[in-house]
Amino acid sequence: MSNPKQLSVQALQWNGRSLSVLDQRLLPEKIAYDDYQDAAGVAEAIASMRVRGAPAIGIAAAYGVLLSAMRHYPADNWQDSVEKDIQQLAASRPTAVNLFWALDKMRRRLNESNADPIAELTQLAQQIHAEDIAANHAMGEFGADILGDAKAVLTHCNAGALATGGYGTALGVIRSAYKRGHLQNVYADETRPWLQGARLTVWELAQDGIPATLIADSAAAWLMKSGKIDWIVVGADRITANGDAANKIGTYSLAVLAKQHGVKVMVAAPYSTFDFSLASGDSIEIEERNPKELLADCYLQDDSLVTAWNPVFDVTPAELISAIVTERGVIIDPGKNGVRSLQTC
Amino acid sequence: MSNPKQLSVQALQWNGRSLSVLDQRLLPEKIAYDDYQDAAGVAEAIASMRVRGAPAIGIAAAYGVLLSAMRHYPADNWQDSVEKDIQQLAASRPTAVNLFWALDKMRRRLNESNADPIAELTQLAQQIHAEDIAANHAMGEFGADILGDAKAVLTHCNAGALATGGYGTALGVIRSAYKRGHLQNVYADETRPWLQGARLTVWELAQDGIPATLIADSAAAWLMKSGKIDWIVVGADRITANGDAANKIGTYSLAVLAKQHGVKVMVAAPYSTFDFSLASGDSIEIEERNPKELLADCYLQDDSLVTAWNPVFDVTPAELISAIVTERGVIIDPGKNGVRSLQTC
Repeated sequence: MSNPKQLSVQALQWNGRSLSVLDQRLLPEKIAYDDYQDAAGVAEAIASMRVRGAPAIGIAAAYGVLLSAMRHYPADNWQDSVEKDIQQLAASRPTAVNLFWALDKMRRRLNESNADPIAELTQLAQQIHAEDIAANHAMGEFGADILGDAKAVLTHCNAGALATGGYGTALGVIRSAYKRGHLQNVYADETRPWLQGARLTVWELAQDGIPATLIADSAAAWLMKSGKIDWIVVGADRITANGDAANKIGTYSLAVLAKQHGVKVMVAAPYSTFDFSLASGDSIEIEERNPKELLADCYLQDDSLVTAWNPVFDVTPAELISAIVTERGVIIDPGKNGVRSLQTC
Repeated sequence: MSNPKQLSVQALQWNGRSLSVLDQRLLPEKIAYDDYQDAAGVAEAIASMRVRGAPAIGIAAAYGVLLSAMRHYPADNWQDSVEKDIQQLAASRPTAVNLFWALDKMRRRLNESNADPIAELTQLAQQIHAEDIAANHAMGEFGADILGDAKAVLTHCNAGALATGGYGTALGVIRSAYKRGHLQNVYADETRPWLQGARLTVWELAQDGIPATLIADSAAAWLMKSGKIDWIVVGADRITANGDAANKIGTYSLAVLAKQHGVKVMVAAPYSTFDFSLASGDSIEIEERNPKELLADCYLQDDSLVTAWNPVFDVTPAELISAIVTERGVIIDPGKNGVRSLQTC
């Protein structure tokens, strides 16, 4: 078993002609990269959750478009082939809007370029990647300002370096707050069914020397009742025009519980997470994954009386969010003040 | 893989000179019994969670005292040896009061008997076992009366035949309600970290031909928000004089969420679950189990920055409980009406 403290691992690495994707399903036991040279491979890596996390999915998809262009240009009708690949990438997962945002950016650049598009697409994909990391660092500072002297926080799922270009959204805020010296305890939900908290978040925190305490998802209310945490800090997969935020299943639960226990809720996400085309969270498509992610094999027969309901996201209404933190600034009490109140820092 | 629908499995079986204990940790993949001939073995079976569920633990402990008496009587100081075994059984798990209740009953009978105690202890242990099953059936009917024409319920952990002498407390209510024809959907929480819902509850329901839908613990709030359930039905490990109820970690969370979503909460438990010596749930000892039940092996080193907080019960205040159902009758709104309002049916 490798010692995670000595590692500095990235979810995605661009190699000039291929995209290396860390297979996050194998962490923390194993660090293994798969190398993708076409868009279909990248789409599969997203659908199968080798790479996950809204910003990381967006970045991977951008490189997927680049790989598609590299493969098809300058064959006949290469634009049609690339568009087909973009469609395949768009179908990989439905909820995170960063995926569609990145694909749109790449498609627009493609349509604008008159000659060989490879250089421009390479530049844009790398820019999307680099800007995501910069955005995380900016969010980290803004978020740490808001946390102030909070001593302990709870996070859900993994909104860390592994879910982004690097550094993290929610974990970026936590990293920045920890550096300032006030934060002492970071609790992490296991986050069933994929256990991103148990496998990824506590592993990431330990790498950075930040003490982490894992809890069962259903222990969060009891943790709040005990007065052990001041804030819940999470990422988001899509934020609608009214400030409703889709995030990993269980986030809505945490937000309702937080309100009842006087705990505050911070959503940290890049500005690309906003989907102003949707008025409210009611319109967000919530991905439901295969029941087998929850069920023992013996229940997977057609005649079984046992099934599973496996929505992997839920929507937290703006009213239950204390602050939305983006790289452009913060929105305090979005339910009261509206998303347009974003204060540019 | 055996077909669970064809099986009728009991958690505990008394064989005249030994206690057969179903190893519930192996379900649903494997049905295997271990045979215990002394109290130490039974204590270990409880501590290791081969047998679990407050009523089943109490029954197993009663048989453990019987096995102790069989082993030590009529050796010198046999009473001291049995008392030591009772102490060991009492130390197996701290939260469920049924354990201490059954041990007290057995100890009192032991102290009352002048001659060979074996016949009397055998009779009492079997009576505790039989009365628990009868109590479950009574609770089933009382609980089904209260559920009325509810179409769908959610249960947490396993408060079924496997957690009791047979039939179940919460699952007894669900079984009885299903027979009446109104109940159509039974949702079951996975119940981390031991997955009693995923391994035991849906398996038990399928055996009885009741369709079951498994969900991740953290999806319960989203399920309530969707309007899919009318009631939450759970068991209890200890109920204090004011009606506060200790039960599997996550029950408190469900009760807080239920209140916010207009869902009602039923606690079904035998009268022996009441601990009138405790004024409120604040005094209940909450078992915290080994962090390794949550953590990957790589975090179990002494120098790891990662730990886990693993309380396996929480306390739901009486105010959040809509009804407590016992074999003696029901308490509606215990927070308002008090436990003494128990209406003998």
